Amino acid sequence: MLKPCIGIIGGVGPYAGLDFMRNIFANTRAVKDQDHLNCMLISCPSIIPDRTDFLLENREKENPAFGMFECARRLYAAGVRYTAVACNTAHADKIFTPFREMAQKHLPEMNLVNMLKTCADYANKSLNVARLGLIATKGTHQSRVYREYFSDTITLIEPEPADQEQVHQAIYSKDFGIKAYSQPVAFQAKDTISTAIRRLIDRGAEAVILGCTELPLAVYAQDFPVPILDPALLTARRLIALIAPEKLA
Amino acid sequence: MLKPCIGIIGGVGPYAGLDFMRNIFANTRAVKDQDHLNCMLISCPSIIPDRTDFLLENREKENPAFGMFECARRLYAAGVRYTAVACNTAHADKIFTPFREMAQKHLPEMNLVNMLKTCADYANKSLNVARLGLIATKGTHQSRVYREYFSDTITLIEPEPADQEQVHQAIYSKDFGIKAYSQPVAFQAKDTISTAIRRLIDRGAEAVILGCTELPLAVYAQDFPVPILDPALLTARRLIALIAPEKLA
Repeated sequence: MLKPCIGIIGGVGPYAGLDFMRNIFANTRAVKDQDHLNCMLISCPSIIPDRTDFLLENREKENPAFGMFECARRLYAAGVRYTAVACNTAHADKIFTPFREMAQKHLPEMNLVNMLKTCADYANKSLNVARLGLIATKGTHQSRVYREYFSDTITLIEPEPADQEQVHQAIYSKDFGIKAYSQPVAFQAKDTISTAIRRLIDRGAEAVILGCTELPLAVYAQDFPVPILDPALLTARRLIALIAPEKLA
Repeated sequence: MLKPCIGIIGGVGPYAGLDFMRNIFANTRAVKDQDHLNCMLISCPSIIPDRTDFLLENREKENPAFGMFECARRLYAAGVRYTAVACNTAHADKIFTPFREMAQKHLPEMNLVNMLKTCADYANKSLNVARLGLIATKGTHQSRVYREYFSDTITLIEPEPADQEQVHQAIYSKDFGIKAYSQPVAFQAKDTISTAIRRLIDRGAEAVILGCTELPLAVYAQDFPVPILDPALLTARRLIALIAPEKLA
């Protein structure tokens, strides 16, 4: 009998999926291979259209929810019963709700952990802050998905429009963006994101959420004077706590 | 119709599997998520006993081939038809032959790429060297698996017994080995492996094979005056060339 298996729906983007899996390994108490948890990572980006593009411009195009569901279905066929999607923008209602409904209908034993809810639960319960900065894609900002999850006692501070455009380019630019250059991330992308984070802190953010799974690839949390939250890291820890709490490092 | 999907049998060890997947991404021509190839990584180390331990000490124990086959079976159920095992020692005849036979019998459409054969093909055809160094686990050395694959024109140079023991500890030690500490790798492990590589070069090695998938996590190839071969990297490139040669970066 195989122990429970965590499956990550990655590819959105590919290096963010890897980083999610690395977070699971790095947060597991293990000194030899066999101590680690059973995990799978699926990275089939060719069947998941860009989430921001769908939300902002091309709603007549295919909903990324269908490709995400196909990935979940494949993980399920391979024995996975605990999963999460390694993309913040994919948690916008117009994508995540149809995805969740398909999964509930067709993959009855699948436990789907919501990354944004996990991050909000952490902020609401464990962080004693009133003002929280949010760096993300335009799709995540404009869909206002994070606002749905946060308690009324927390004010979300988002970048000014010019900074928001810069952050978006730092993720998506084909010349220097993280999705095109992750090995290593370009200095221009790192600098842009650092600047945006510092401006949120200047505007009163007591902690900052890295609300796109590409951002942790470009940010050293210890460079900033406030807590930097990585929703993928929090979700990796949540998945470990669900299937093997004694292994959570 | 989903395009061909590469599946990596990882977990042996977990970070080595991640590095294999990263090699696929980093060697693919891509500037946006959707340009990347469809891949899966399975990391179920709890069902794959230690390969070196099986080869050297515990042959009455379960053959790791069975766990490797279970991983291949799960990848197959998820749609994978191209796979490789991200562990050199697992390619020893006593493990790899029963694994390959089970896969051929039960997973008829699976294309299994042999990492050691891929490395040997590269060395025999593309590297004009007569003396090749090999750093690996005790299981890989003592099973002499690499010698089976190399042409008679190449002499393999392996560490002296004391160095071999040190290299083994750099991989397996629960205090400082790469399997226990990959984030980051401990200096002691890096130093031990560097020293062993330099001694092989001093003994005439014109290139050195990193014959354990943990070793690339600890070695900067550019630190050495001869080519350093990473069989996992060569195999990642071979898999890309098989399913989408136009994408090979």
